[in-house]
Amino acid sequence: MNADSTTSDITRADCLARDAQDPLAPLRERFDLPEGLIYLDGNSLGARPRAALARAHEVVAREWGQDLIRSWNTAGWFDMPKRLGDRLAPLIGAGPGEVAVTDTTSLNLFKALAAAIRIQAEGPHAARRTIVTERSNFPTDIYMAEGLAGWLERGYRVRLADSVEELPGAIDDDCAVVMLTHVNYRTGYQHDMAALTRHAHERGALIVWDLAHSAGAVPLDLGGAEADFAVGCTYKYLNAGPGAPAFIWVPQRHQAQFQHPLTGWWSHAKPFAMAHGFSPVDGIGRALCGTQPVVSLSLVECGLEVFEETSMEAIRAKSLALTDLFIELVESTCAAHPLGLVTPRAHARRGSQVSFTHPHGYAVMAALIARGVIGDYREPEIMRFGFTPLYTRFADVWDAVAILKDILDREDYDVAATRGAVT
Amino acid sequence: MNADSTTSDITRADCLARDAQDPLAPLRERFDLPEGLIYLDGNSLGARPRAALARAHEVVAREWGQDLIRSWNTAGWFDMPKRLGDRLAPLIGAGPGEVAVTDTTSLNLFKALAAAIRIQAEGPHAARRTIVTERSNFPTDIYMAEGLAGWLERGYRVRLADSVEELPGAIDDDCAVVMLTHVNYRTGYQHDMAALTRHAHERGALIVWDLAHSAGAVPLDLGGAEADFAVGCTYKYLNAGPGAPAFIWVPQRHQAQFQHPLTGWWSHAKPFAMAHGFSPVDGIGRALCGTQPVVSLSLVECGLEVFEETSMEAIRAKSLALTDLFIELVESTCAAHPLGLVTPRAHARRGSQVSFTHPHGYAVMAALIARGVIGDYREPEIMRFGFTPLYTRFADVWDAVAILKDILDREDYDVAATRGAVT
Repeated sequence: MNADSTTSDITRADCLARDAQDPLAPLRERFDLPEGLIYLDGNSLGARPRAALARAHEVVAREWGQDLIRSWNTAGWFDMPKRLGDRLAPLIGAGPGEVAVTDTTSLNLFKALAAAIRIQAEGPHAARRTIVTERSNFPTDIYMAEGLAGWLERGYRVRLADSVEELPGAIDDDCAVVMLTHVNYRTGYQHDMAALTRHAHERGALIVWDLAHSAGAVPLDLGGAEADFAVGCTYKYLNAGPGAPAFIWVPQRHQAQFQHPLTGWWSHAKPFAMAHGFSPVDGIGRALCGTQPVVSLSLVECGLEVFEETSMEAIRAKSLALTDLFIELVESTCAAHPLGLVTPRAHARRGSQVSFTHPHGYAVMAALIARGVIGDYREPEIMRFGFTPLYTRFADVWDAVAILKDILDREDYDVAATRGAVT
Repeated sequence: MNADSTTSDITRADCLARDAQDPLAPLRERFDLPEGLIYLDGNSLGARPRAALARAHEVVAREWGQDLIRSWNTAGWFDMPKRLGDRLAPLIGAGPGEVAVTDTTSLNLFKALAAAIRIQAEGPHAARRTIVTERSNFPTDIYMAEGLAGWLERGYRVRLADSVEELPGAIDDDCAVVMLTHVNYRTGYQHDMAALTRHAHERGALIVWDLAHSAGAVPLDLGGAEADFAVGCTYKYLNAGPGAPAFIWVPQRHQAQFQHPLTGWWSHAKPFAMAHGFSPVDGIGRALCGTQPVVSLSLVECGLEVFEETSMEAIRAKSLALTDLFIELVESTCAAHPLGLVTPRAHARRGSQVSFTHPHGYAVMAALIARGVIGDYREPEIMRFGFTPLYTRFADVWDAVAILKDILDREDYDVAATRGAVT
């Protein structure tokens, strides 16, 4: 950083002008955002689509309250995981009948890992025993992989690559499955999905992608990359509501072999025959398990609807413009302060967030939140800012940086603030 | 049945009189029930508490829409699985800190079975390899047990007892875990929880109870019975909403040993430290896995609230009165028809439903539904009627039987009706 410069040539008026010309600007009206709040945490919990309130009313009052049990058929509850999956599919480069919205990201990851391990165990690489991932992966993904490996009893283990550079070499002759999060939750680093998938396959491994910070944030082409399995979150960039059910992608070519231990009634070939003995349904339905939370699941559709009015290419173009602007404004106007950019500058390696370290990152983020700029904090020292092109304005970026600069210039933060309250 | 008698001494006026004296009658007003509908399917999907609509609005509009990510703390989302668990606990004879509301019944069963197997594998009965259950158990429970057993790779198997009488003997020296549904979903047969738990323990086995058709329907005393684990459903008799998250009970004495493979972030000792390496939290929190569907989860509270205005003893007394009345009216007024009672007459062995077989059970149930009496159908030939004392009236029972009698007397049902549409 240049400590001599603490101003930028970019004015707020410039940002307002960009908003006026932004083809995505009208979509902000599709969301309910609190007056005066600058919400840069859509990578943790997406904002509420306005349509979700009426939809919740409809599901609770009419579908549940009036139609009761009949809604399994009349309101399409039974088909909802697959119907929503088909609607989500175009955002991730998946085909129809390849995606289900169900359970949690953690559980879907468990299913995908189990299926990948079973496929390998029945093929030419049956002796392989390693699941390879990154030490910097989202911890719960590692916990789930360790949970599965620890119960398989044939000596499976999880190997953690210490850096992106070390990753290709870690995919060795013992590697059964590679498990990667496409965009890192802390740094915003975006992997090259096509290249790593190809590399994994060349080494005889299968690859499972976690798209938690990618779906709805960056263009994805799972099919084109010939990836093996993917899971992801709907409540971040897809704006489906707090804790809304996650998704799982199983490409057609793997569906016949897709087996996992979580064999509940909803994945049975004849779920209402109450037959003894499990017989999985053909297709993506075999990724389902138990009965889903219908009210939360229904709201997923309100998030997906908005994406149908634009394209991932338009969203990506604005995302990069927003994150470029944020980086430029922070680095120019806050140059006197010990901020460190941890998000890649290279567009191809960047997700839709920007993370900066600061020695008092927790306290600074708490001060930002108190002044209406909602980002979040991740250990160690990382302030994380998510940019959601569907509702974030260029002027929001300018205002957020102005507030950050003011907090830093005046040291208006409490370094003794107790950690743990900022989620 | 007595084919000579097709009337009953019990009049509709008698039933109205009983409703007028029913101490639970006022609680019906706490539910939104469609005008003119007789809903006898609360054992499949409970009716909507009126409070659920305002609660859904609050969660969607304010907690999600306005407070956004901050609601994890300010609205208590993070503590909700345990807070709801504590509120549910008195209904099942559990202590505080022993119940979590999370995931699905199937997944919770998987966790409980895995934990029970692990405890046995580390104890004096480590060589045991059998999970014992009933062939008549809810099929998804058997599927989940088979799914787990099939992945453990050390030769675990599921043994199906063919009858209640055969069950005690099936709990032999190879039995690691007994898995039973307390009230059978088809017949309404209620097991003797205390006696079977004692028997399992005497044989060196642990026991997992599925309370799907028991919680909120019959008094339960898990603690008094010294059961090992239990799971159950909130969207049936607990009226939590379609597919609402299920519950799991882990008694204090087993919590330190409670291990399962679904080790997501929410069961970590320090969930926000983003630590590498899984370290489970103490207590019931280790039954959690991934992020829960907050909107659906929030509505669980509206169902539980109603129970706090009465007691399971009062509910049980009315439940038996309702099911006795239904049996008596059907057997007296429909005696000319080939109906067979499959639900036990003995109060101690009966849940809160009554099932009758009829050679055209599917068609008769479809005709009942078309005339506003909602029960359901289960293969083979079983018409199932659930009685929910919180909102079912004695006059509803009388009216339902009158309509059934009319349908049967006039053969006003379509024996060619396609099966599969009645859920």
